[in-house]
Parts: sequence; C-alpha cells; structure tokens
Amino acid sequence: MSSVNTRRLNASNINPHVREAKYAVRGELAVKSEEYRAKIAKGDTADLPFSQVISANIGNPQQLDQKPITFFRQVLSLLENPKLLEHEDVLLQSLDYKPDVIERARWLLSKTGSVGAYSASNGVPAIRQSIADFLERRDGFPADQADIYLSGGASAGVNTLLHVICANEKTGILVPIPQYPLYTASLSVLNATCVPYFLDESKNWGTDLEAIKKSCADAKARGVDVRAIVIINPGNPTGASLSESDIRDMIEFAREERLVLMADEVYQTNVFVGEFVSFKKVLRTLQKENPDGKYDSLELASLHSISKGMVGECGHRGGYFELVGFEPAVQAEIYKFVSITLCAPVIGQCLVELMVNPPKEGEPSYALYRQEYDGIFNGLKQRAYALWRAFEKMEGVECGEPQGSMYLFPTIKLSAKAAEAAAADGRTADEFYSLRLLEATGVCVVPGDGFGQKEGTLHFRTTFLAPGTEWVGSIIKFHEEFMDKYR
Amino acid sequence: MSSVNTRRLNASNINPHVREAKYAVRGELAVKSEEYRAKIAKGDTADLPFSQVISANIGNPQQLDQKPITFFRQVLSLLENPKLLEHEDVLLQSLDYKPDVIERARWLLSKTGSVGAYSASNGVPAIRQSIADFLERRDGFPADQADIYLSGGASAGVNTLLHVICANEKTGILVPIPQYPLYTASLSVLNATCVPYFLDESKNWGTDLEAIKKSCADAKARGVDVRAIVIINPGNPTGASLSESDIRDMIEFAREERLVLMADEVYQTNVFVGEFVSFKKVLRTLQKENPDGKYDSLELASLHSISKGMVGECGHRGGYFELVGFEPAVQAEIYKFVSITLCAPVIGQCLVELMVNPPKEGEPSYALYRQEYDGIFNGLKQRAYALWRAFEKMEGVECGEPQGSMYLFPTIKLSAKAAEAAAADGRTADEFYSLRLLEATGVCVVPGDGFGQKEGTLHFRTTFLAPGTEWVGSIIKFHEEFMDKYR
Repeated sequence: MSSVNTRRLNASNINPHVREAKYAVRGELAVKSEEYRAKIAKGDTADLPFSQVISANIGNPQQLDQKPITFFRQVLSLLENPKLLEHEDVLLQSLDYKPDVIERARWLLSKTGSVGAYSASNGVPAIRQSIADFLERRDGFPADQADIYLSGGASAGVNTLLHVICANEKTGILVPIPQYPLYTASLSVLNATCVPYFLDESKNWGTDLEAIKKSCADAKARGVDVRAIVIINPGNPTGASLSESDIRDMIEFAREERLVLMADEVYQTNVFVGEFVSFKKVLRTLQKENPDGKYDSLELASLHSISKGMVGECGHRGGYFELVGFEPAVQAEIYKFVSITLCAPVIGQCLVELMVNPPKEGEPSYALYRQEYDGIFNGLKQRAYALWRAFEKMEGVECGEPQGSMYLFPTIKLSAKAAEAAAADGRTADEFYSLRLLEATGVCVVPGDGFGQKEGTLHFRTTFLAPGTEWVGSIIKFHEEFMDKYR
Repeated sequence: MSSVNTRRLNASNINPHVREAKYAVRGELAVKSEEYRAKIAKGDTADLPFSQVISANIGNPQQLDQKPITFFRQVLSLLENPKLLEHEDVLLQSLDYKPDVIERARWLLSKTGSVGAYSASNGVPAIRQSIADFLERRDGFPADQADIYLSGGASAGVNTLLHVICANEKTGILVPIPQYPLYTASLSVLNATCVPYFLDESKNWGTDLEAIKKSCADAKARGVDVRAIVIINPGNPTGASLSESDIRDMIEFAREERLVLMADEVYQTNVFVGEFVSFKKVLRTLQKENPDGKYDSLELASLHSISKGMVGECGHRGGYFELVGFEPAVQAEIYKFVSITLCAPVIGQCLVELMVNPPKEGEPSYALYRQEYDGIFNGLKQRAYALWRAFEKMEGVECGEPQGSMYLFPTIKLSAKAAEAAAADGRTADEFYSLRLLEATGVCVVPGDGFGQKEGTLHFRTTFLAPGTEWVGSIIKFHEEFMDKYR
C-alpha cells in the first residue's frame, strides 16, 4: 500500500489548537437543527413531531421576525446604488424616503467614496469621528477617533485584541464563566491560557470579586502571566448588568493586578433592569477623582456591535473597539494586524455610524425610528418575561428575572436517571436534555456546558427572540414528559 | 518609581509573531500618503509639490475612478431596503431598474431571509449552489456546494486555511516570491515556516519547477514539514498566467511531495495575455486521464474574490474558497473554525452570487452589464499598456509586457550612490526610491522588498488603476531627476 491514496491532512495532524477549540453555539445541535429546517423546507415532515425549527441558540434577531430599522436600510440602499440620488423627487414623493435619509447617504458617500472601496485599515475616518462623538455624548468624557478601530462585528475585534495581547501559552486571560464561547475558542486557537472566574448565580450572575481574586492568584501561582480580564456587561449568556460600584471594584482590581480590561459591551442597549454604565465612563471618572495619576496607565478596550441592541444587523458584520491608555507602539501593532485583512466591510461601517448617530428629535425620520426602536425593545422585554414565567412554572427549573441581553440562562435540575441516560449516550446531562428538546419540539437551545458552568450544575441558554407563545408551550410540554420519563 | 504608571502592554511584550509580521501594502508609505491626502483635503497644499495623492499601492479600483456595475448595485439596493419591492412600477418606470434586477433581489431575499441575519457559517446554501453551478460551467466538471465556504474576501479564506493547515512552527508552506504579503504575514502570525520559491523574472515571472523542487528539498533537509504550496495565478504582483502545462507540472510536483495545493485565483478574469485555466479543471482532467487513482487524493483549495476582476467591490469583503479532496474530518474543523466568527458579510455573499451569475445574453440587464464590464476591462488594459510604455522609456527600468492582474512590477537599477543614500537613511534602496517618489509626486507605490525579490534586485509594484496620464508623466519626471541626482 503506497501513500498515494492518503490525504495529507487529517483530523490528527492539523493545527491541534484549532482542533481543541469548542464553539457550541454553532455546534452539533445547531447543525442538526439546520438539517431539520432543510427537511421542512422540502415538505418532508412526516416523521417530525414539529412543523418549524426555532433557532433559539443564537442571537440572530432578523432570522426570526425582527424587522430592520427603516432609516438604516433606506440610507444603505442609497449607498449601494448612489444613482438613486439622481431621482430625489421620486425617493421623496413615491418611496417614503425622507430628506434626512438622503442627506445622510450623501454625507456617507462623500466620506467613503464608494462602499465598494477599501477604507483605511482602522475604518473610515469620518465614521470613527462619529463614534467618538457618540462616546462623548454617552459618557461625558472626550473620545479620540484615532483610538477607534472598526471591525467585522465585535468578534473580529476580540480576535484582534487577543492576538496582540497573547504572547505565548503562559499568557492568561481572565474570562467569566458562564461566557460567550468566542473567548475560550479564541484562546484555544491562540494556545493561550483561559483563567476562568465564576459569576455568582445566587446574586443573579453578578461578579464575585473574591472569586476573581482567587482565580487570578491561583493562576499566577501556577506560573501563568495573567494579563487581561474580560468582562461581558451586560452579560452573555446571563443578561446581568454591573452597577457602577461593581465596575469600580473591577477597575481597582485590574489596577492592582496590572490587567488590561476588555469590556465586551455589545448588549449596552439591551437592558431591562438597572442601567448600563460603561467601563470607559467609570475609568475616566476615577482618573478625574484621582489627580495623583493612580488610574492613568490602565489599559481598557471596549467593544460594541451592530449585531445586538435594537439594530440586530448581524449579517452586516459591523462593530468597533475603542482603546484607552494603550501605548502608541502597541496601537501601531494593532493597526498593522488589522491591515493584513485590509478593512472591515464598509457597508457595515456605515451601519455602525447610523447606529451611533440615529435620527434626532425634530428630524424627519425621527418619529418612525423611535416607534420602531421602542417596538423592538418592548417586544423583546415582553418575550423575555413570557419565557421567564414559563420557566418559573417548570419543575426543577430556576431562572432569575430577565435583566437584559437577548438570553435567559436557567438552571435545570435533572434526576439521577436522566444523568445515567445521558452518560449512556456519551453526553453531558444538559447536552442530552437539549438534544431531546430539539428532537421533540424543533427548539434549538445551547447546553450550559457550551458556556461553562460550576461543576454539578446544569443550564441551557435560550434567546427570547422568537415571536409567538406556541414554542414556549412546546418547551413546557417536553419538559414535563422528560421529567416523567426519567423520574 | 512604582509600577503604577507603567502600561501592561508594550512593543516588546506583546505577541512576538504579530510583531514580526510585515505588510508593506499598508505600511509606512501608505500611512504617509494618507497624511498627504488629509492635508490636501484641508486645502493645506502650500508646501506640497503635487495636488493629489494617487494610491497605486493597493488594488482598490473604486477608490480611483472605477464605477460599480449597475446590475450588482441595483440588486443590493433592493436587498438593503426590501420595502422598495412594494413599488415595482416606480422602480421599473422611474428608476431604470429592469425586471431581472427585481427578480434576482426577490430570489436572494427568499434565500437569505434578511441580509441583516447571520447566515450558515459557511454561507447561504443557495449562494453556495450558485457558485457550484458557476464552477461547473467554468471547468466542465461538477462542483458540490458542500465544499464551498463563503469568506470575508479571499484574505479571510487564506487565514482560515492556513490556521487549519499549520500545526506548529515546523509546518512549512511554499510561497512564491515575489508574493502578495498576506501569505508571509499570516505565516508570521501563525508562527509557521514560509518556504519561499522564486518565480523566474527572465520568463516573465513564470514558475520554475527546478527552483521549487530545490526550495522544497532544502526545507525538508532542515526538518521542515512542508505541507502545502501556494500558487497565485494570475500572479500578484506579477500578473503572469500559468499555462495548462505549467499547472500540470505543479500538480504533479504536489502529488509527488504530498502537498496541499492552495490556488489563489482572485485575478482569474484580469488576463490580457494567455488564458486563465483553473487548478480545479486541470486536476479533474488529470484524475479522468488516470483511472488508477494516482491523483485522487490530492487536496486543492482554490480561492476567489469580489474585490478584483471587473467587479472591484473590495469594500464589500466577499469571496469564497472551494475544497477538493479534503477529508470530511478536516472539513468539519474548517467549518468549526469559520463558525467562531459566525459568517461572512451577507451582502458580500450576495455580491459573490451576482459575480458568478451575472445577467445572461437576452436578459434585460445584459446589454448594460456587458458594456460596463467590457469598458472596465478595456480601460484597465489601456492603462496597463500606457504605464508599461512609460516604463520602457525610463533609464534603468525594465518591465515585462502587461499580462494581467492589476499591477506592473518593474525592475529598477539604481546607482551605487543611490544605494549609499538609502543606506544612510536606514532604508533599502527600493524603499528609499519609493519614498522619494511619493514625496515628489504624491504617487504611492510599494517597494519590491514588501513582496520579496532576489537579493541584489530592486522593484516596485504599482497598480494601473488610476485614470489619466498626468500621474504617469510625474513618475517619468521624478525618475529622471532621481537618476541625475544620484548619478
């Protein structure tokens, strides 16, 4: 037998760090749910106990029924086909375009040249300035466009930051558990060390400073060079918003330990309880309160995205990060790194601009914008509460009141018999439960295992984006039957 | 002195592999050219000997004067604002939209749901099928949509493939020199080994099989695990198209050495001399001619993009790669890897679909599409020849006849005095020359050093995208003065 018919690459000789990465949000269950969806699309439903797939595994609002915001999409249509601007009268009189739509499109075109041209590697300068203006309005502190980097979604920003921060396998990054698995997957690919810190479920998934300190100290004792701490605020999958006082504690801890703060703030407008306070605002406040310069050399990177919030434009892959306190030489390396893949999608950059600078009161598009924005916000809140109330009634399920983001992350307590059945199936109990849920109802959730959880606890993450209540009813029914079967 | 005012990250403790990566296309000269552009935009031109910046450093057609193709952009405008489809009569009667534009937009919307929704990680299934159909028409051999992966430009595809292929620092990838620096930069970041092979300038930058074999053998003798070979066809920066016989030789070599073939075919329609033949077509032909299965286990990844060709939609970040002969287990790892960053921009995916499936003869949008496409092609060819003729007249400059892609890559012979001046400035001679050219004319090119070149030779790469002849005249004038100064 010669080597002629042997492929060069196989699962055991490719990059081991890619192989080790886990990303359950789009893992086996998601793939299976897409197979069901394809079957249903072909009308092949005879052997399925459900007639639609509900992709509650991923925060993808426009895949469900969320409509895009009219102002945003009208502007984008003009950016894609600038020839429409030669027909202003038709746009205004026959197509419901308002003068501020036309004005914004003309302005963005003047600044991008064409959305088909590469922009500067860090993004269109005028869009960076618009983001800086937004940050100043939001936080009450100035922002510099030179510190802002447009990215293809926040994911690309996280990828860039971790690439630069992680020097070798000893580099440790503190990551909350449960977390959005982008962080652990990226650290696996980079062969750096994830230093997990547990959020406190008993305090509605708030931060537990003592637990963080202990994780950090333990890692350092093992020789890990802990360099940065990731904070997801509001939380994913938990929805928890940190208070200003929590944030102060985290900053103080980062200062003591000389950690770069990575604040993933993509859910900053998805807040039902409490109020979003940015890390930048608190850091600048602390710097102002401490003229001795105690906080001046802290490094903060904060990330935002057009995929979440009321924008929900995931498919456009837009986002940005702002750097505070980074050395110019490090910023130059970040600039070079993003240059290698040229630039973020320019139409996505324009959507970022529209997100941070939406129609203002008194402008022609404002009324509709407000109505659509509030409609989406209230719809999400209602769905969150409806789902939460359903969980409240389910045996062995506990879930904190909805706080924000797009998710609920209930605890489930399953019987020993269910655990045995899962083990016999070669799965964790929450994976087993989630798989049976998908098979019975077409509802796709992500087992808690995919985000990390304290040993001995079980959870699943579900979005509350899907409209209607039928799918919630089907979860309740499945759960009863599952509990009875494994009682 | 406490550590309080010391930042955690500095140029010497960040990821050394990021630090080592070089990407001259957007390096110092490009940054300087953008500073000039900003000055000019402010009207601050008093101390500049030129009134415009010509970015000939990067293949960015729509930054210069290339207009997007109308059919593409009309469809995209409807995808961005589907409400326009409620006004078909207005579109048709007042806005120059044709029925096939509307039909395509409806079809793409039915397949994507919304361009604001994440697609499947590997891309919208119907778009993958459309690409497979295109490949079958192009090559005369079937293609399977399951083997196609949409990406954010070809760059993201290269990043994915190299991430999976490169297992550790011993992994070697054969890369042509000169090359597009994405390859060397990505291999630096991944800490894998670049195994350069020189193209033969005396044969108009064709491949030199003996040189490739020697590079490969030498690397293996040094303990490098040579796993793949990159071929850029048509070449960047050289424009050279490989003949079918060259491609057969490369495939045979890859078979003998068990190398994965990475065929970067993004310039497949930018061909003035010869004919583009795809690696896939030649591989399938060889497989058909050899029923003994000799070529059956070869692995080929071929890449394409919307950024180049007559499409020139760089800012939309669209592309794809097709895998041939990869193990299913390896494909599963590739799927997981692309899942971590969710999906390629969906509007860019739609543009890929439009590129591979443009209006056909007899369809309403065909005439204009043909006219625009041919106009761009002929314009590029004319500009290439005008620039080439200018180079022909310049002392110490040699340049092969234009063959394709978007670039010329002339050799320059500079005097010992110029080399000394460059050394005194701490620069390579081609870098020194290119910098003086930029300062004198506003024309930004990339020194040959940024692509790699044989020791002792000097080159620069310039696009031929800029309209007009004035900038060409300014290069001629600068060159004469430079030669005189350092004679």
